[in-house]
Amino acid sequence: MSKVPPLSRQVLSNLELFRGLSTAALDDVVASASTRAFARDFRVFNQGETRVRAHVLIDGWIRISQSGSDGAQIVVRFIGPGDIFGAISLFTDRRYPADADTLTDATEVSWSDRALLDLMNNHPQIAINAVRIVGQRLQEAQHRVRELATQRAERRVAHALLRLLRQVGTTTSRGIVIRFPLRRKDIADIAGTTLYSASRILSAWERAGWLKTLDRRIVVQSLSDLMRIAEDESGQDITPLPP
Amino acid sequence: MSKVPPLSRQVLSNLELFRGLSTAALDDVVASASTRAFARDFRVFNQGETRVRAHVLIDGWIRISQSGSDGAQIVVRFIGPGDIFGAISLFTDRRYPADADTLTDATEVSWSDRALLDLMNNHPQIAINAVRIVGQRLQEAQHRVRELATQRAERRVAHALLRLLRQVGTTTSRGIVIRFPLRRKDIADIAGTTLYSASRILSAWERAGWLKTLDRRIVVQSLSDLMRIAEDESGQDITPLPP
Repeated sequence: MSKVPPLSRQVLSNLELFRGLSTAALDDVVASASTRAFARDFRVFNQGETRVRAHVLIDGWIRISQSGSDGAQIVVRFIGPGDIFGAISLFTDRRYPADADTLTDATEVSWSDRALLDLMNNHPQIAINAVRIVGQRLQEAQHRVRELATQRAERRVAHALLRLLRQVGTTTSRGIVIRFPLRRKDIADIAGTTLYSASRILSAWERAGWLKTLDRRIVVQSLSDLMRIAEDESGQDITPLPP
Repeated sequence: MSKVPPLSRQVLSNLELFRGLSTAALDDVVASASTRAFARDFRVFNQGETRVRAHVLIDGWIRISQSGSDGAQIVVRFIGPGDIFGAISLFTDRRYPADADTLTDATEVSWSDRALLDLMNNHPQIAINAVRIVGQRLQEAQHRVRELATQRAERRVAHALLRLLRQVGTTTSRGIVIRFPLRRKDIADIAGTTLYSASRILSAWERAGWLKTLDRRIVVQSLSDLMRIAEDESGQDITPLPP
């Protein structure tokens, strides 16, 4: 973790949380911001920690993962450039609800709880933007609830990959690449299945030539096969069997 | 559906969305509110409908349920007195994300999208309250995701009942009563299991004397047995077998 120069109004005005603000308002936002840079595999905050701040990622990737009282863990989401994280706890029980770990080198900007509330009171558009951002995440979470409640593992893994491709896929000559390193355990966690099942499914898809792993990134080579599995309602596994 | 008299400042000041507002601000809120009364089994809005409003339930109970493109349906939540519903869509894609049906006679108050945005811009505390409410729901949804991803059906049904008891349970001489009528399908939907599994589990618990159904309400008679199942991590079914 190292100190980096403060951010410009220009960078902040492109963030969804500060969309639609006047120049004067953006100056207020800049004035109370702190910027930090992290190396890969750095723990930004721990689940349960109480000195909460509102964070926005400027650059890099972060994994948010949550453990239950029974020890079971899920990946809540991956945070990319422009996304807020850790901020909702300022409004609820003032404890971070999850762990945050960098997946790559990363730069964040953050505000104290007091600074964010002052900004929202002086510039209500920030609070309105926050309702929209949190509302979108709530809709996504409800979508995941429905998938988990109603779909079998193979279909959920296909949905999880398609969601990642939409959010963070880049088309290259080799296929569509997910832009940050993912473990099979991450895929299992976001699809809500076991590491064993996710590995079995991903290995079968690799053998079928639908995807491969290059430099720790997943590269999807047959989007149409993944979409066919995501849409299939027969309830039967349609992954090719091992030879 | 019938027209009912407009609500008082007093009633609104008790709602979480309007917590901490001045008398003048509450007068603004009252001025743009519409109040409606519904009979039981009334469809308040349909999933996909675009003329969205921000709703707060004053009295009664409402079920919010969502269908996927594959037809699979889940109960998203039960709305009780004081809860907001349908309001998040004003900030996202401006379509109701789910159906809302009354479970009992009910009274709501609602605001147009324009009126709510004006209120939030003039009284930022309303937007800050909304971030807190939506943030709490997001945390609950992530909790459900973790349960669905990691727990077996019996444990999820126990968790779903315990959550309902905490939210809407009343202690009576006969046990703890869930205060609105629930179908077995509702329990299955919120626990993310099939009607068949939920019925099998609930019937076994009835035979064991842990709960019963009186006047379409579930009455829990052995909280400790439900808690034992909710906490069990052995992965084995511990519900008593049918005689």
